[in-house]
Amino acid sequence: MNHTHQIAIDKVRNSKLDSTDFENLTFGKTFTDHMLECTWKDGSWSTVEIKPYGPIMVEPSCKVFHYGQAIFEGMKAFKDENDDVFLFRPEDNWIRFNASAKRLAMPEVPEDVFMDGLKELVNLDRDWVRHGDGLSLYLRPFMIASENGVAAAPATEYKFMIVMSPARSYYRGDVRVVIATEYSRAADGGIGYAKAAGNYAASFYPNSLAIQEGYQQIIWTDAATHEYLEEAGTMNIFVRIGDKLLTAPHNDRILNGVTRRSIIQIAKDMGIDVEERRVSINEINEAAKNGELKELFGSGTAAVVVPIKGYKHHDYTFELPELENSYSNQFKKALVDIQYNRAPDQHGWRVKI
Amino acid sequence: MNHTHQIAIDKVRNSKLDSTDFENLTFGKTFTDHMLECTWKDGSWSTVEIKPYGPIMVEPSCKVFHYGQAIFEGMKAFKDENDDVFLFRPEDNWIRFNASAKRLAMPEVPEDVFMDGLKELVNLDRDWVRHGDGLSLYLRPFMIASENGVAAAPATEYKFMIVMSPARSYYRGDVRVVIATEYSRAADGGIGYAKAAGNYAASFYPNSLAIQEGYQQIIWTDAATHEYLEEAGTMNIFVRIGDKLLTAPHNDRILNGVTRRSIIQIAKDMGIDVEERRVSINEINEAAKNGELKELFGSGTAAVVVPIKGYKHHDYTFELPELENSYSNQFKKALVDIQYNRAPDQHGWRVKI
Repeated sequence: MNHTHQIAIDKVRNSKLDSTDFENLTFGKTFTDHMLECTWKDGSWSTVEIKPYGPIMVEPSCKVFHYGQAIFEGMKAFKDENDDVFLFRPEDNWIRFNASAKRLAMPEVPEDVFMDGLKELVNLDRDWVRHGDGLSLYLRPFMIASENGVAAAPATEYKFMIVMSPARSYYRGDVRVVIATEYSRAADGGIGYAKAAGNYAASFYPNSLAIQEGYQQIIWTDAATHEYLEEAGTMNIFVRIGDKLLTAPHNDRILNGVTRRSIIQIAKDMGIDVEERRVSINEINEAAKNGELKELFGSGTAAVVVPIKGYKHHDYTFELPELENSYSNQFKKALVDIQYNRAPDQHGWRVKI
Repeated sequence: MNHTHQIAIDKVRNSKLDSTDFENLTFGKTFTDHMLECTWKDGSWSTVEIKPYGPIMVEPSCKVFHYGQAIFEGMKAFKDENDDVFLFRPEDNWIRFNASAKRLAMPEVPEDVFMDGLKELVNLDRDWVRHGDGLSLYLRPFMIASENGVAAAPATEYKFMIVMSPARSYYRGDVRVVIATEYSRAADGGIGYAKAAGNYAASFYPNSLAIQEGYQQIIWTDAATHEYLEEAGTMNIFVRIGDKLLTAPHNDRILNGVTRRSIIQIAKDMGIDVEERRVSINEINEAAKNGELKELFGSGTAAVVVPIKGYKHHDYTFELPELENSYSNQFKKALVDIQYNRAPDQHGWRVKI
């Protein structure tokens, strides 16, 4: 690789690989041997450092703790039967990362830092990417304000880092959702489209209320009227009415998910009628009542495709039918087959490390 | 003091006090000798530790960096001519801190941790509170998610900390503002009323656009219509039309400022007609055009009272008149006199350390 930015690599002496139990992984709790760190200061990025995964020292006045400039991406690396390792549409994540950075008044990360650094890091820890369906390496690029000081203004220093966590797919139990009628995730003109840390913190309390009611997640609606479908915080949402697939358009309140975009393409490739448009909750309720609501599912990098078994909206509850050959299962299989190099990559989504 | 929670104190060997230049303080950059730290884990708070101010070690997977659970308060300690040190309405900050905590699915901090810890810390570093108008000790209680792991869920561990920074009032130059017509700070049903780190990060980019236009700050309006006055991100906003004082009611989008509440009381004590109600931008523009708009000012702990010299709304700009005996100057003097124990404390706002 031809790096504009130098990459300095400091390898671990003793890998944790042999002592890692790949059969019993809790999502996001185990990290690989190495991580990437790059600092922005005085208007430029430092040398990219790849070094042993470990703690960092920060002052309690570090601005990320006080003013919340923090963004991230979620990506995965997959291994095929020939031990080749692939990323999935990584450029989309890099582009979105920089869109998030701009909205949070943070510096954009150059392609040679984000992409070349990521590839070098994944390659170095490639033994952490395991064979087998559902096994992947979850990649977490993120950036935080690292300047010290408790004055409310954009920071003058930032850290861009990548950490990586081996993951396996897990059965999370049935997912039923509450459709939001009181709380909101994002405002028009706000930061809902950015993968900003603060968006997640804002959703936890309303989500905990849904959990108390016996549901697992919230489907957000627009803050102004609560009449239109938005997203689920960690997932975009798809609705199947009859044979038609509907999803909310991405806008300044809704994250433009890479899995969302991939599913839309896969559906179109399968000849399914897809509409990206405003979807009213009333339309969903009506379809439920007249038997036309066939599926409701979420999409995201971590969970891939998550079928929703039922929902609650105000006092109305509905259980989705069990389908033999659901869209969500077909989409998941098609997507995963491309990711693991078991199917042709007609759209050029795989990137070999 | 009678502590339910034990406070363990580890004093510095060498104070930084003598080497601190109190004549040249940049806001929020210099910290006192000590800080407070208390950890929440397995459902309970640890011993309160007061120890030398210094860096903390955190893993890159620390949840605050990824999911943004971070809240804070801003308070000040003042010293009078007898070397007595006072806090200003600290209980209000503690109550609001816990309201923020609840909205961000974080544990509430008990009074004996927050208040007794704060008093003990201020008392230990009381030599850092200096005499003289405009000199104060800025207090920054904050809480962050400290569990490690990149799964999107509320953390199971938190750190509550207090750091303190000597401050002096400074002339910030004239302040002119842009009234928001496109970007938003908070949604109905969102976290605008919480002192959450993420709210600040969301405001920096729109604010940078205002700065590029030659203005210093944004006055936010409601996300749904941009027709009604909200707040300025680090300040609540007051409008004087004729002899009447108007300010937006606090709601789930607007921070319930302690300085705001104090000014409302001071204005009422002075016999001024105060209305807490929705204020439309149209009403402000009309008052500007017919000569009734006398003052526009912001209020907050750090800046106390900040007169606004002019504003822009779409293409309309207006310069506020220069008044001899402005409300904002009267309120600032009345407030500061109470804070520094130079005036009677008829509402019981001062708390002596």
